[in-house]
Amino acid sequence: MKLTILGCYSATPRTFSNPTSQVLDIKNHMFLIDCGEGTQVQLRRQKIKFARIKHIFISHLHGDHFFGLPGLISTFRLLGREAELHIYGPKGIKEAITLMLKLGDSWTNYPLIFHELISRESELIFEDDKVEVHTIPLKHRIYANGFLFKEKPGERKLNIEAVTRYGIDKCFFQNIKNGKDVMLDSGEIVPNKKLTFDPSHPKSYAFCSDTSFNTALVPVINNSDILYHESTFLDQHEHLAEKTGHSTAKQAGKIAKLANVKTLILGHYSTRYENMESFKQEAEQEFNNVLLADDGKEFEF
Amino acid sequence: MKLTILGCYSATPRTFSNPTSQVLDIKNHMFLIDCGEGTQVQLRRQKIKFARIKHIFISHLHGDHFFGLPGLISTFRLLGREAELHIYGPKGIKEAITLMLKLGDSWTNYPLIFHELISRESELIFEDDKVEVHTIPLKHRIYANGFLFKEKPGERKLNIEAVTRYGIDKCFFQNIKNGKDVMLDSGEIVPNKKLTFDPSHPKSYAFCSDTSFNTALVPVINNSDILYHESTFLDQHEHLAEKTGHSTAKQAGKIAKLANVKTLILGHYSTRYENMESFKQEAEQEFNNVLLADDGKEFEF
Repeated sequence: MKLTILGCYSATPRTFSNPTSQVLDIKNHMFLIDCGEGTQVQLRRQKIKFARIKHIFISHLHGDHFFGLPGLISTFRLLGREAELHIYGPKGIKEAITLMLKLGDSWTNYPLIFHELISRESELIFEDDKVEVHTIPLKHRIYANGFLFKEKPGERKLNIEAVTRYGIDKCFFQNIKNGKDVMLDSGEIVPNKKLTFDPSHPKSYAFCSDTSFNTALVPVINNSDILYHESTFLDQHEHLAEKTGHSTAKQAGKIAKLANVKTLILGHYSTRYENMESFKQEAEQEFNNVLLADDGKEFEF
Repeated sequence: MKLTILGCYSATPRTFSNPTSQVLDIKNHMFLIDCGEGTQVQLRRQKIKFARIKHIFISHLHGDHFFGLPGLISTFRLLGREAELHIYGPKGIKEAITLMLKLGDSWTNYPLIFHELISRESELIFEDDKVEVHTIPLKHRIYANGFLFKEKPGERKLNIEAVTRYGIDKCFFQNIKNGKDVMLDSGEIVPNKKLTFDPSHPKSYAFCSDTSFNTALVPVINNSDILYHESTFLDQHEHLAEKTGHSTAKQAGKIAKLANVKTLILGHYSTRYENMESFKQEAEQEFNNVLLADDGKEFEF
């Protein structure tokens, strides 16, 4: 699983800082999460192939999380895209994008499919044989969701030494990886656990931005491997966090601890601060494995 | 008069090329012309004070000319703007911007005033004591206008030597600059032209993008000092220009010649071409004073 941060600053795009957008490379999917202004340029900078993006998840309809979307959709069209594009986001997103494109008489020539969200409860919004995506209801000034990306448990791993020892034919291998026992010619049944190892741990990534400090999201993201939690403010501005529906780094650390995640990544910094290290230090007062997002940074898990 | 090119490439924003946007500094106005995605970042790069922008002119509603507008309007709000912002553009622009902001529950706290355009004839859309702005109807795939920015003739210039020689008191100077004659104590009337020089030539700037080759715009922009005319294609792709409602560099040169302008600036280049010099060379086959726009370039007139 690889996470690429395209932008992780709050509010407005600037010369050297971009609003929220990231790409999660998970089980051959390239999921785009949020799409602030300039996202398509950031995708080019990171050399991410546009054609690999088939699903875009939009947390909420503040400009710094979706004003890059009409341009990206238009660029896909100019590049001759034919593949479906799925967009998951709050109700209203379809009307807005449709209007922006309609005014230019430039509807897409590829299928553009909107999945509008209205639920206040966590729900499954995407699933295939390898991955699930669930919403994480957030508490912000407007309707907002985070997203929980979960790998499904993979196949069991073949114990080559054991299957060789038992003289088992290759044609049984897929069944064994699927968890089946094997009956030998002798009639003896070899239980699956003698022939396989456990599959690798299925990983999960929880994206939570924008949100105020909200313990209600703990059960949804519990035991996730990686949590990206917004930290717009430092502790000295906790009152601003409360007023604007955002969190401090320390509060992000608290959520990480309560949810028992393995790694916390901080982002959505207010540009009022010069030194991002303070975010790490304050979150570390609550939780000990803290990383700092930055534009262009990649995290491999 | 100073023209700053923020972006002059067609279609999509890229790492080193921006869609259409420019700033015209004329008689203390900072007029923003078009607003492709990333315009606010380009404004920062050029160190143009956001507060000085009070009028934005949008030629047409293709994404590469207005997808930066919702973000710029939002940023003005975040920066605490209080001054009015006037936006001139095709009908529909108000609904689109209003919807984008409404979805984020983030209406501006400064007056945002839309002037929607529907006329197919050139019309006066802004005027004060020093400047006029007229539309230039263009021929494109959708409704589009260029804009003609004209300085009004200034005051006549005082001939200091002459007024001293006649012993004229300072209290008459403003009347003289306004074109009045002066009666001396002797009863002699000194005609204004003996006391003044002509005012400096009032300059004009015509912005024409996007448009196919269209001689109907010649009478509107006739004798302009500077013409910015789109040249999306080179001559070898004239068929594409015709098909997509754009012009070639040579066609831009023809319009410049027919309209008897002083200087032609080319822009809106397709990113398919590596070398912009070819645009200049092809336009120069028709017109001899050709300049090339480029992102970040400034022209003083």
